[in-house]
Amino acid sequence: MTTSISASTSADTSAVPASAPSADASSLSPHLRALAERLQGLLGEDVVLTDPDPVYTGDHAVPSAPGTSFLLTLPRDVEGVQTVLRLAHETGTTVVPRGAGSGLSGGATPVDGSIVLGLERLTRIREIDVLDEVAVVEAGVITADLSEALAPHGFFYAPDPASARLSSIGGNIATNAGGLHCAKYGVTRESVLGLEVVLADGTLLRTGHRSIKGVTGLDLTQLLIGSEGTLAIVVAATVRIRPLPVARRTVLARFPTVAGAAAGVNAISRSPVRPAACELLDARSLEDIDENTGAGVAAGESAVLLVELDGYGIAEQADDLIVALGGGDPDPSGVEIRVLEDQAEAEHWWELRRSGRGSGAGHFRLGEDVAIPKSRLADAFAVIERIGREHGIRTSAVAHAGDGNLHPSLSLPRPEDNPDPSAPLPPVLHDAADDLVREALALGGTISGEHGIGTAKHSWLDLELSDASRALQRRLKDAFDPQHLLNPGKAL
Amino acid sequence: MTTSISASTSADTSAVPASAPSADASSLSPHLRALAERLQGLLGEDVVLTDPDPVYTGDHAVPSAPGTSFLLTLPRDVEGVQTVLRLAHETGTTVVPRGAGSGLSGGATPVDGSIVLGLERLTRIREIDVLDEVAVVEAGVITADLSEALAPHGFFYAPDPASARLSSIGGNIATNAGGLHCAKYGVTRESVLGLEVVLADGTLLRTGHRSIKGVTGLDLTQLLIGSEGTLAIVVAATVRIRPLPVARRTVLARFPTVAGAAAGVNAISRSPVRPAACELLDARSLEDIDENTGAGVAAGESAVLLVELDGYGIAEQADDLIVALGGGDPDPSGVEIRVLEDQAEAEHWWELRRSGRGSGAGHFRLGEDVAIPKSRLADAFAVIERIGREHGIRTSAVAHAGDGNLHPSLSLPRPEDNPDPSAPLPPVLHDAADDLVREALALGGTISGEHGIGTAKHSWLDLELSDASRALQRRLKDAFDPQHLLNPGKAL
Repeated sequence: MTTSISASTSADTSAVPASAPSADASSLSPHLRALAERLQGLLGEDVVLTDPDPVYTGDHAVPSAPGTSFLLTLPRDVEGVQTVLRLAHETGTTVVPRGAGSGLSGGATPVDGSIVLGLERLTRIREIDVLDEVAVVEAGVITADLSEALAPHGFFYAPDPASARLSSIGGNIATNAGGLHCAKYGVTRESVLGLEVVLADGTLLRTGHRSIKGVTGLDLTQLLIGSEGTLAIVVAATVRIRPLPVARRTVLARFPTVAGAAAGVNAISRSPVRPAACELLDARSLEDIDENTGAGVAAGESAVLLVELDGYGIAEQADDLIVALGGGDPDPSGVEIRVLEDQAEAEHWWELRRSGRGSGAGHFRLGEDVAIPKSRLADAFAVIERIGREHGIRTSAVAHAGDGNLHPSLSLPRPEDNPDPSAPLPPVLHDAADDLVREALALGGTISGEHGIGTAKHSWLDLELSDASRALQRRLKDAFDPQHLLNPGKAL
Repeated sequence: MTTSISASTSADTSAVPASAPSADASSLSPHLRALAERLQGLLGEDVVLTDPDPVYTGDHAVPSAPGTSFLLTLPRDVEGVQTVLRLAHETGTTVVPRGAGSGLSGGATPVDGSIVLGLERLTRIREIDVLDEVAVVEAGVITADLSEALAPHGFFYAPDPASARLSSIGGNIATNAGGLHCAKYGVTRESVLGLEVVLADGTLLRTGHRSIKGVTGLDLTQLLIGSEGTLAIVVAATVRIRPLPVARRTVLARFPTVAGAAAGVNAISRSPVRPAACELLDARSLEDIDENTGAGVAAGESAVLLVELDGYGIAEQADDLIVALGGGDPDPSGVEIRVLEDQAEAEHWWELRRSGRGSGAGHFRLGEDVAIPKSRLADAFAVIERIGREHGIRTSAVAHAGDGNLHPSLSLPRPEDNPDPSAPLPPVLHDAADDLVREALALGGTISGEHGIGTAKHSWLDLELSDASRALQRRLKDAFDPQHLLNPGKAL
């Protein structure tokens, strides 16, 4: 599980539940044991697992509590998912849906006494239709696999969370996953036209359409996206696909300070150029990359904007970008701008951005995810530095700057005499995260840009949502799942 | 009301309720009369109108039934909207929200005994922030006015229904309005980040965020968009704005047949070019334009693709488009392609497309709105022609071809001895529309691409939505509006 990609996005690699206790049959309640027997009879022994691999005891952020017992089901098809939900409904058993388990907010963490319903075997790409510009895929398809399947057709699937090589389309839909290219191509929501979901009672429901337009009744598709498995279980989706851009170019701009880089983002906003990706790396995150990879990209307090342009007129785009960023000779702002003509160098930088961030294994680390109005990036970076100073911790941050989404990393060195990787995080990191979330809200932002609420951010919901909003959300939950069987304690 | 713009999109200009009976105070029930007095005391006499202008008795598609009596309220601010809803809630009075009244599906048609709640006085553009790329606008702002206000900043608001000079942002949000540029820029949904709505009991609720990303709880913003005022009343919105493209170019391609033009759309799908707009006009719709404007654009059975390209690399885009459409010398397909270098000529064509379509005042006319998977355009045009033959009516059709959204026009000449503009449509037009909607579904499409359900398409809902879907939608309605006071009989 801990490939370089997962490490790049994991909230705390020490929390990957490699050493968590497994749920075994002997620990199952009589209720779950009886249910397991019935389901095994209906679906087969290899679909219903009473002694699951420890990997199923959590996701990339949150392991389940010690002693949690659950039944793992891995249906082979949609009918299998319906069978599991029908029996859960009949017996009043809670169900925790699970995509690829790469989530960062605990959305897939097992709940004691529940059925964990893994969608990982629903991996069919049912259809690719370039004339309709859609693909129909099952929930367990790995996100990057879809774009690989589309490439020979000259198409791609735009949503690309950093976990794209690990995460599944179904999980992306459950969390409305973001990524690096959202400012131009939108988040997962903008690429989903229709869904096939199984309701809490096992009913199969199709929502949405195959055309870009369609306004028949309430948009259940859009309500289900991002609902983290609390309303229904996504089993398949009709997604929008796009033609591969005719050209790509990477521009690297190094600013003397992070405030200068943030001003550069504002300058891009004022210009007609809209990058496909625009990543801001602060000085400390460049140091993290150097420590993790030996790349040698840090230079004092300088910060980097790593920009990808794509599409037609790529040279004009680059020219306008350079003008916007104030490049020139002599350059009053001290910004150094390079167009990375060498594709290998460009790809190296993007790989460093994706996989190199965060302090390494010698640290306790908490990865955060907040979004703010993008004009406030300089303020947000200043807040992060202040929080680091005040709590005596190390902070670094990268931002999907084009959409105001920051991923600060909060860390402390592990004591040399106690390198236990499963030791709990020091409370100061949680305190610092609490400060950070509150400051993001004060800047007009949100407590989660793209990772979701799950269990990890549940306690902060009331800071952002009004009583009226939460009451309404509970009533919507009741409308879908009156017994509250689906993913209890998450998201809402 | 019947400007050239409204005529271009109106389902049937004879249905504009210019001659409909007005509701006057003497026809109001004692309940409404008492309510009017209380509301006048709270909000002023000019806000609460017991004898409203006849224009308020319907929208551009559907006039209210004869004898319908209602109270018109035109609050000046959000607090006024809350006051109206609080009293409606307290007294169990139904409320019909109304934007600019330019809807084409009867969503704003008064219901007998109800309060019509017009948002037309909420016209403040509260904020334009180019660095955050957002505007905060009240519901009554006319759509085109927002883009005009943004132009000096170098920005625009992407959603552009053909009614943009008439319709309001709030109405656009209520119907999730589309338009000509959706294939590239998305429908209204893709440009709305957050909402301010008033719930059925008068509570003010803010949803969404000011950043492009944000995944806190269920996405109420997205559920509210397109709900046609059945869940809550939209009073303001935070919308996404975009920089004006650096260049625009119009390409006109004329094909010997409509099937050839549809094949041209498929060829564009296979290419890397993605037009900002791609409109298909069949031979009969070109004849309509000639009849209405004298432009002289029809030529036998030929059909036209009118394509707008925008952004960087405009010349390369045009070159790739021409290659995709099979232009060449000699040209085996018979397509004639012209880049309209003369901006005046290009604008003339777009104005003809927007305002010239549909048979004129000498006809009974029913305008339709269906969407299909865009690879099926040729089939859809063949279906429309067959329906015309079988029912003995005249058909023409234009399509937002880039997103598979067709606007067929079904018409019959009015008898010369009975030119009464308020005469009801002949049943054969409704029969033909029924065939059309069913055929659109059979092609994998939807009963409404962008106009909404309102009352006009209500009877077709069950053709598209399953029992499970409709039951779920009713439960969601209950969650928002347990007394069913908001826009009863519409949309759901």
